[in-house]
Amino acid sequence: MSQQRVAVFGLGSMGIGMARALVRAGHAVWGFDIRADVTEAFAEESGNIEAFEDIASQIDVVILVVLNATQAANILFGDQGVVQQLQPGAGVINCVTISPEDARLAASRCANSNITYLDAPISGGAIKAGEGALTIMASGTPEAFKKSQACLDAMAETVFKIGDSAGQGSLIKSVNQMLAGIHIAAMAEALSFGMKQGLDPQTFLDVIQKCAGTSWMLENRAPHIIEGDYSPKSAVNIWLKDLGIVLDAAASIDFEAPITQAVLAQYKGAAEMGLGGEDDAAVVKLYAEQNGLNLP
Amino acid sequence: MSQQRVAVFGLGSMGIGMARALVRAGHAVWGFDIRADVTEAFAEESGNIEAFEDIASQIDVVILVVLNATQAANILFGDQGVVQQLQPGAGVINCVTISPEDARLAASRCANSNITYLDAPISGGAIKAGEGALTIMASGTPEAFKKSQACLDAMAETVFKIGDSAGQGSLIKSVNQMLAGIHIAAMAEALSFGMKQGLDPQTFLDVIQKCAGTSWMLENRAPHIIEGDYSPKSAVNIWLKDLGIVLDAAASIDFEAPITQAVLAQYKGAAEMGLGGEDDAAVVKLYAEQNGLNLP
Repeated sequence: MSQQRVAVFGLGSMGIGMARALVRAGHAVWGFDIRADVTEAFAEESGNIEAFEDIASQIDVVILVVLNATQAANILFGDQGVVQQLQPGAGVINCVTISPEDARLAASRCANSNITYLDAPISGGAIKAGEGALTIMASGTPEAFKKSQACLDAMAETVFKIGDSAGQGSLIKSVNQMLAGIHIAAMAEALSFGMKQGLDPQTFLDVIQKCAGTSWMLENRAPHIIEGDYSPKSAVNIWLKDLGIVLDAAASIDFEAPITQAVLAQYKGAAEMGLGGEDDAAVVKLYAEQNGLNLP
Repeated sequence: MSQQRVAVFGLGSMGIGMARALVRAGHAVWGFDIRADVTEAFAEESGNIEAFEDIASQIDVVILVVLNATQAANILFGDQGVVQQLQPGAGVINCVTISPEDARLAASRCANSNITYLDAPISGGAIKAGEGALTIMASGTPEAFKKSQACLDAMAETVFKIGDSAGQGSLIKSVNQMLAGIHIAAMAEALSFGMKQGLDPQTFLDVIQKCAGTSWMLENRAPHIIEGDYSPKSAVNIWLKDLGIVLDAAASIDFEAPITQAVLAQYKGAAEMGLGGEDDAAVVKLYAEQNGLNLP
């Protein structure tokens, strides 16, 4: 696949890794972030220093890796929105976790400007992003996949083609987030329950990861607790947002999700303790506080 | 290790496999079940036809694989309890899921009769039991481990030595059950949430098992739903019992477990629909009923 001209919006821990993976794959990459110093640092690194409006007409693909649906919509369709600056035939790859409804709406608005839209939420952390080894759950028209293929090849180890219309990728992402969010808090509840009866956290991890009670999240997050490392790989606040998206969608389709609701209440409790910016494993501190536990 | 004379109480799907694994390892095995025909069938298979009272004085190890704490206590300490019939120096291996408190009490009563007691809950299904490839989470005195070693070798692929007193094995088992029970119901909630928005169950499994939202239970139980097979590998009612044990223990130490409570309510709801005897994946039918979903 030939070299493309790619603009990446959002140079956080995921976006910067994805932008670098695109550079390594031979694409010309412009990076943008609301933090001017971050934008400048990447411009220096990539050698591509133009402002978006100065290269918009040459851009093949815009990739969004910003924080939320509001930021994404603003970048695409705001006053200085990129969609009105792109040439017809250009493509958008939206990697932001948004609702299926928002994804369908964005795709429709892009189509009106002859811009392809790939609904492409991502899974995997910052390390995988930097390695170009993400998992991407993508849906969109055949044209959107074709336009996006070279970038997907550079960023992802696995691309699930979920369906041929926007929204389906975001749907399975929301299902995945529902489970991932539940599993982290469940790990915290079970570990705390055991600790209150004398169970050692390392024994918890050693044994449970070999048993039927294990989960991907347990194996990934329990070590944070054992090491006492709450520097945010993914923060408590992310779950207020992502489970909020899930429960808003659930309410809109009249779906009762009592387990997810119980879990969200725990993340809220942790955030109210001032832990919103800490790693999501810090939800265990809510249980520790309630039960007088000494965490490692 | 030399051949031992072993009595197995409880020849259900787990116990029969364990008894056969012991026979294959060269031990002399007597099997007992409240169902007379099951006891007779195993006696024919093993060639060991005596009633327990007739061979009690020669038995080295008694293994319990019955349904619950009441049955286990009755076999050990009831009117015709085995502990009073065994010779001093014999051993008990209790594989039943019971509370840590019950395990400590049973060990203490056995010690009074000079019988070793290994607190040895098991993980893994009937197939692993038959292969002698269970995971056993064991705790007990060094003497209890020594007495049990030959049987553990025959029955288990992995033996976690959790600690040197009874109760610690049952504690980690209860932590494992807490997580396993949560993960099955969470899978059902997430799958139903997706299905109500058009997600195909096979796509759910294909994608999520490769993503951060996966769990051992999701990968094991979601196929039951996809195949529409609710023949009980492990029944809904098991979770009423096991999560009941967990929440009783939680209450006794003043531990709030809101996620586990929300999950138990879902299994109760399924049982109230008459699904108690079906495979635990049938908890999805509660969501399907509430949301008008057509399951495979």
